[in-house]
Amino acid sequence: MMQYSRNTIVALASAAGRGGVAVLRLSGAGAAAALEKITGKSCPAPRYAARRRFYHPQDGGLLDDGLVLWFPGPASFTGEDVVELHCHGGRAVTDSLLAALCACDDVRPADAGEFSRRAFHNGKLDLTQAEAIADLVDAETLAQQRQALRQMDGALARLYDGWRHDLIRSLAHLEAYIDFPDEDLPAEVDEGARAGIRSLLQAMRGHLADGHRGERLRDGLAVAVIGPPNAGKSSLTNSLARREAAIVSATAGTTRDVVEVHLDLGGYPVILADTAGLREGSDPIEAEGIRRARARAETADLKIAVFDGASWPALDTHTVNLVDDSTVVVINKGDCLPADQHQTCPTVAGRPAQVISVHSGQGMDAFLSALTAEVQTRLEGQGSAPALTRARHRSALEDCADCLSRSLQAPALELMAEDLRLATRALGRITGRVDVEDLLDVIFRDFCIGK
Amino acid sequence: MMQYSRNTIVALASAAGRGGVAVLRLSGAGAAAALEKITGKSCPAPRYAARRRFYHPQDGGLLDDGLVLWFPGPASFTGEDVVELHCHGGRAVTDSLLAALCACDDVRPADAGEFSRRAFHNGKLDLTQAEAIADLVDAETLAQQRQALRQMDGALARLYDGWRHDLIRSLAHLEAYIDFPDEDLPAEVDEGARAGIRSLLQAMRGHLADGHRGERLRDGLAVAVIGPPNAGKSSLTNSLARREAAIVSATAGTTRDVVEVHLDLGGYPVILADTAGLREGSDPIEAEGIRRARARAETADLKIAVFDGASWPALDTHTVNLVDDSTVVVINKGDCLPADQHQTCPTVAGRPAQVISVHSGQGMDAFLSALTAEVQTRLEGQGSAPALTRARHRSALEDCADCLSRSLQAPALELMAEDLRLATRALGRITGRVDVEDLLDVIFRDFCIGK
Repeated sequence: MMQYSRNTIVALASAAGRGGVAVLRLSGAGAAAALEKITGKSCPAPRYAARRRFYHPQDGGLLDDGLVLWFPGPASFTGEDVVELHCHGGRAVTDSLLAALCACDDVRPADAGEFSRRAFHNGKLDLTQAEAIADLVDAETLAQQRQALRQMDGALARLYDGWRHDLIRSLAHLEAYIDFPDEDLPAEVDEGARAGIRSLLQAMRGHLADGHRGERLRDGLAVAVIGPPNAGKSSLTNSLARREAAIVSATAGTTRDVVEVHLDLGGYPVILADTAGLREGSDPIEAEGIRRARARAETADLKIAVFDGASWPALDTHTVNLVDDSTVVVINKGDCLPADQHQTCPTVAGRPAQVISVHSGQGMDAFLSALTAEVQTRLEGQGSAPALTRARHRSALEDCADCLSRSLQAPALELMAEDLRLATRALGRITGRVDVEDLLDVIFRDFCIGK
Repeated sequence: MMQYSRNTIVALASAAGRGGVAVLRLSGAGAAAALEKITGKSCPAPRYAARRRFYHPQDGGLLDDGLVLWFPGPASFTGEDVVELHCHGGRAVTDSLLAALCACDDVRPADAGEFSRRAFHNGKLDLTQAEAIADLVDAETLAQQRQALRQMDGALARLYDGWRHDLIRSLAHLEAYIDFPDEDLPAEVDEGARAGIRSLLQAMRGHLADGHRGERLRDGLAVAVIGPPNAGKSSLTNSLARREAAIVSATAGTTRDVVEVHLDLGGYPVILADTAGLREGSDPIEAEGIRRARARAETADLKIAVFDGASWPALDTHTVNLVDDSTVVVINKGDCLPADQHQTCPTVAGRPAQVISVHSGQGMDAFLSALTAEVQTRLEGQGSAPALTRARHRSALEDCADCLSRSLQAPALELMAEDLRLATRALGRITGRVDVEDLLDVIFRDFCIGK
């Protein structure tokens, strides 16, 4: 019989804090025994919610009255025996129950992520799916939630495992050609492998060149509000944030620090940065603020350039020089514009400008729609191809692509095979499949070596 | 068929915030239909945890993947049909699921306490048990948890309902005597009723005179740390709190405000208040601090009087005058005491004094044990009689006792009966049983009027 050294884990699965109900979860071979110990009754039928009283296993004191569920492995989240206790959601109750469970044989508090880790080890999840659970719990907006759900469903794992499968197949053919040159193998193996690698490399580069939309969707799209002093950048920021995030005054140069607010624009997460007004020859503190404003404009995924309608048609050249394809142009204080400009759509540096008035609300709905559309374009992909969501995946894919490029230049088949092995390993790191058994499987299945 | 106007309620039942799992709970006749709507599948067997995907009922978008449980009424928490959704515990997930459920027929967000309120209306809980659930969720220490569990188990309800039952019986006999004077009823009814009322009144007064231990256990026992300036009150407070709650300096008069810290002493909740040192002729701010220190000493359930061992055997008379039966006396800076005092147990105003040194830790364990024992004596009752736990109950019991006293002085049986009716109603307010049907039941059962 297998020996366990406190290998059954327990933790609060629901959020910490006061609530009507809290869920404690146990996983491991000792879970059912611990449940029987603290309830003094046998486990209920699998997946059947039974009412039980919970007692301390040592002093017998009543701790709570709640529901229990038993999920025998392998049909459970972790693949092991899992027990859930549904108790009242207060600090004393959950603390005393955790202590009581840890006083049972084989039970100890779980480490961070240990339930998902066990699910991974037992083949219930690959690494991208495990990461998706963390993303789903962290999701603040609907678009983040949907991306996490697609990934949890295995969309990314299928893409990467599919590529890896292709690569393993090419490698297997190549290995066979190297190892058994006397066998009656097709001579076009080399060229076939090269064509496969080129096609895979192209797909991978297309996936990598996605403007980081999946990563931005996880973290929030960086949007910088730029413009001359006193154009109404902070008023616009506060209006979008629906709170007084940045100090607003009639004095030019009020904003100096970069003030960040987190927004949910139509389900998409945005980190909006209000910045100092761009101008020359100001005091040292403001000059530092302007330096930071320019740095923010440079790294932002999207800029909102705010011009002062009161000075129309004169436009601040510092700001005009920063307008590009990633800029939404607005002219604030629209009520100060000549009447004829309300009819036509003014342009700035070739970009159409939205005429708004933060003060009166004029044009704000249209501006918000245009801004949301720009955000959506940058975060939502075309079609249903899953997006690259983490720097960890990007780094592994870049390693893989480097190996593939190199393999095409390799002076000998043995070196090419070695590059393909490294490329396979890099891809395998993403989903967590980094053993070589499957490589052997393909060799034996496709080539009937044991003839 | 009954008409519902959005009478099915839904709410997050687990604590708000990030967690592996969150529990959403629905109650009402539309709960099962809402579950079928957002899962696109029929309800699983009662109390069986089935895995389901959750979709928005309008746009069909996937929202999460989790477990569902169906508890058909009346064998549920509220007595109505109850459905639980176990989803991932993130903000976007729970918000979108709540919105999706509220888009189903008959479903709306629950008001605060509405699940327990329905359980009360459906006879699943009395009011004291409903209050006990709130107490259990709020419990921070083991003793609070145990008191709430006893009350949730119905210990208080049985006590009050038992008294009310006795009262109703006395009243029923009295009413019969008034209404049917010609009937062949025992003549000693009046004296029997009086004896019953006197005995009940005695029990009730004993229950009321419990030193507010049940209420203190809910709220925390108020303990004031008093003493002369610079005796080490703040050091002792910080040592008990295990953090730098109060500023400590060598300057006398450092503490002026009352600094409160919440402690868990052996499972009992304590609110420890550090106060200004007692002395004459100080500046106005310190004088106000000393006024507050004296007020705190007066209202505290327990005092810790801290004397300065460095001035031994001289003792601060302001502090000595405040020492009483509810005072734990300590002499700090015990290392400054003459050696012979270490062997004997010094007394102050007839109370034994604990010699300690906060600085070196000398005597601290013994002091902590003595303090915990004093706290326990004040919070734990003798035997297993349940304690009065809320001001609401105390107020109703005092009303009831007043009515009972008055009834004994009543000049006529009719007036006595009216006082008993008021007393019964006051008791009924505690558990929520305030109808008169049960009075009629007793009359008809005991007297066979329909002869």
